[in-house]
Amino acid sequence: MAKQLEGPILPFLRLDAAAAVPKFRQVQDQLRQAILKGHLRPGTRLPASRILCEEVGLSRQTLVRVLENLKAEGYLEARQGAGTFVSAALPRPAAIPRWQKSLANVPDMPPPRLSRIGDLSRQMSADIGQFEPMPFLPNRPAIDRFPFALWRKCWNSVTRGGKVAALGYGDLGGELILRQRIAEYLAVHRHDPCDPEQIVITPGGHAAFTLAVLALADPGDGIWFEDPGPVTTYNLFHTLGFRLCLTDVDGDGMDVAGAAARYPGARLAFVMPSRHHPLGVTLSLPRRLALLEWARANDAWILEDDYDSEFRYDGAPLPSIRSIDSHDRVIYAGSFSKALYPGVRVGYLVLPPQLVGTFRNLSGLINRSVPVETQLVLAEFIGGGHFASHLRRMRGLYAERREAFIDAGKVALAGLANIDCSESGLNALAWLTDGRDDRAVRQDVLEAGLQCYPLSDYTVATPRPSALILGYAGVPTERMRPYLARFAEALSRS
Amino acid sequence: MAKQLEGPILPFLRLDAAAAVPKFRQVQDQLRQAILKGHLRPGTRLPASRILCEEVGLSRQTLVRVLENLKAEGYLEARQGAGTFVSAALPRPAAIPRWQKSLANVPDMPPPRLSRIGDLSRQMSADIGQFEPMPFLPNRPAIDRFPFALWRKCWNSVTRGGKVAALGYGDLGGELILRQRIAEYLAVHRHDPCDPEQIVITPGGHAAFTLAVLALADPGDGIWFEDPGPVTTYNLFHTLGFRLCLTDVDGDGMDVAGAAARYPGARLAFVMPSRHHPLGVTLSLPRRLALLEWARANDAWILEDDYDSEFRYDGAPLPSIRSIDSHDRVIYAGSFSKALYPGVRVGYLVLPPQLVGTFRNLSGLINRSVPVETQLVLAEFIGGGHFASHLRRMRGLYAERREAFIDAGKVALAGLANIDCSESGLNALAWLTDGRDDRAVRQDVLEAGLQCYPLSDYTVATPRPSALILGYAGVPTERMRPYLARFAEALSRS
Repeated sequence: MAKQLEGPILPFLRLDAAAAVPKFRQVQDQLRQAILKGHLRPGTRLPASRILCEEVGLSRQTLVRVLENLKAEGYLEARQGAGTFVSAALPRPAAIPRWQKSLANVPDMPPPRLSRIGDLSRQMSADIGQFEPMPFLPNRPAIDRFPFALWRKCWNSVTRGGKVAALGYGDLGGELILRQRIAEYLAVHRHDPCDPEQIVITPGGHAAFTLAVLALADPGDGIWFEDPGPVTTYNLFHTLGFRLCLTDVDGDGMDVAGAAARYPGARLAFVMPSRHHPLGVTLSLPRRLALLEWARANDAWILEDDYDSEFRYDGAPLPSIRSIDSHDRVIYAGSFSKALYPGVRVGYLVLPPQLVGTFRNLSGLINRSVPVETQLVLAEFIGGGHFASHLRRMRGLYAERREAFIDAGKVALAGLANIDCSESGLNALAWLTDGRDDRAVRQDVLEAGLQCYPLSDYTVATPRPSALILGYAGVPTERMRPYLARFAEALSRS
Repeated sequence: MAKQLEGPILPFLRLDAAAAVPKFRQVQDQLRQAILKGHLRPGTRLPASRILCEEVGLSRQTLVRVLENLKAEGYLEARQGAGTFVSAALPRPAAIPRWQKSLANVPDMPPPRLSRIGDLSRQMSADIGQFEPMPFLPNRPAIDRFPFALWRKCWNSVTRGGKVAALGYGDLGGELILRQRIAEYLAVHRHDPCDPEQIVITPGGHAAFTLAVLALADPGDGIWFEDPGPVTTYNLFHTLGFRLCLTDVDGDGMDVAGAAARYPGARLAFVMPSRHHPLGVTLSLPRRLALLEWARANDAWILEDDYDSEFRYDGAPLPSIRSIDSHDRVIYAGSFSKALYPGVRVGYLVLPPQLVGTFRNLSGLINRSVPVETQLVLAEFIGGGHFASHLRRMRGLYAERREAFIDAGKVALAGLANIDCSESGLNALAWLTDGRDDRAVRQDVLEAGLQCYPLSDYTVATPRPSALILGYAGVPTERMRPYLARFAEALSRS
């Protein structure tokens, strides 16, 4: 039986004449809230509309509109000749939880119910590059030298004249024109031709790794991983439930023989043969061949992160493992984050033919690639030769900055740290000469207004001597000396 | 003991004077290949460089460069006073596989060794929207009406003057300015305010779903899923290893009571309350509240795909489930694929506060968001009011096209099909009046140069009467009559 609302409806409403939200909207929202919170119960009859109009100060026409809206939404119902009621079909609301929906107010609560992946993500940091770009921030290209004017030109050229090619869903594996340009680039500059159909475009390098490990390994399967190694990639694989098989790294790169002896049954080897991060070493040819042989013999896969192969200062980059793989075991991963700029968020995989269909499907399901517009602009940028000449210029610039870093560093850091600039990449290592904790020293460096990462943060299980990772590529040549002097001061203060 | 190469080296080389690749490069590549293939074995001594120069027709200086490069790569080694050798440390190559690295030549082979996810992906199609945009292609907005000139203006404005904000790694959860604009849009147009910190930007809608299910459910966990429902989303969840708990759909949307009785222990409900795809129904308010109550009582989650809420022709869109969720059980998913254009590839999630950290971390690990440039342009487009006015214009346009579709369809399809245009979205259903197989009929429609999807493709287990899904929003009003006449002809031919 319908219950007449006792007394006026206004106690449930808090109308604010000064608010930007119009009054009718306030009434509508607050009536809805009153119903949801159980203040107005299912089956309750509302006062006659004449009375309501008076109470809330709306015209009859406006009030009718409010009531009609709430009827359309299912909160109210009209009964022929009997008036307007809170819908009888609505369930009784459950008790309101103790805390409000505001991030500022989240009290200490038990963690929410998550999956295993969710639980690990909750505790796992994905923070890379979230730092203020202070001098010596590692992995930072000279983004102020990026030829944005040319990029704009490319953007204008692909979007001119109302072209709508960029508007449709686009190709599952990435736009064909971009895949062609990447294949051409790899053929000429990496000396490793492939069919554009073997390429899948991904939203950045990590998305490429995610695709590969999801398609090739099951949770609990082993993945070879160099220790030390890139910590966010470790976090990615660990979070997705894989077993990380830590391998040693020496001057010739990953200890392949040791790994093959300890983890013969792993599904996948993640390796950075061009330039190991953060140690800067290159994987030797015999080890590359041994790695290929292990993969062939064990029906395993190699995920080749061709990290920083674009930036080598002592000659041509070494050929990729993929280019000498005659058994189709290598999944080659590239990214434009450092060759162009990190915000571009475009990565790609070059796949053995037998994996193409699987990877295209999985990529289409889990992320469906990159804005088509970005892909077309990038294709134009590569096709117009701007990419190759930007790389050439940056290679020259970074070589110059590297020399300046070494020269100034030798003087400034004498007795404090030994500088180790490998022949490639954007970063250097400063090995601390005494046994001080690199994490603690880093704090002093930060306080001096400079950046660096402690090597310890990249170390999973095998302790290494203390070292700091510094990015020199983003620092102007003429600033090298004063910044390194400031760095030395921070070190000697520690 | 080193073995002298017997006879000339030229038999291993195939030099081509007419090739674009310079001769020294040909020599270098082919020597490398000869070593990798075992034609030149580890420890073999090369002929004296004087003889080599003559044989291959290179100057001594160029030949020395080739040999130096191959030494640097590890293929050759010099022994003091004894000449140049194929590196003794190289392992013997394994037999070359029978088939070559060309996609055209992949023979029938046993499938490669993949993960469970990989195996499912191999067999699972992700093809949506890969079709020629023929008339009536479902889910197709009027992309020719997209105000690309304004988009260009926004692009120019955010990239003008060498701004480099777009160049860095950007925020883990997406650029703050875009999250603010989305929060404002949701507050004003979806009437559902949230803190920008609750938003995570993803590379499209599917990436948003992937993030949510990975964080909230373990493989084997149940996910409520409407049958019929969006087939690629089904494929996504199935491929990732979840157990799909199929629920009925009637005129009030998902059968929540039935699902709660059959699958009380599911971890997650995937639901499209604003407009079910493909049936076009809206989830009723009592069922929304029942769904919230189920989630609260079972510590489960609701993944609300706010599909097509932007396009409603009979009044304001219904409030989202999120907006009436007082227990923080709803993960709200939105996308710009249809509101702007599919190629933009930007989606987002609005999260309960207790999930924000987890989702930011996981998103950072698996894909790290969207090109920063695209995010800034989109923020500018929304902030400049262009998004709201584009939606308003499209709502008017689609309403007009819907009317035209209904009017012309009633006449043209009389006796062949009953048209069912819900009050929202971009698509209509044509229920075939006799029992013909909708997949077969679709073939005739395709041959007539028109598009449509058979409802059967969206049906997992529960058979439905035959129907075709047609997209009317992308078809100009004046073309509705002739295209529908052609469609009718195809139907009567079947």
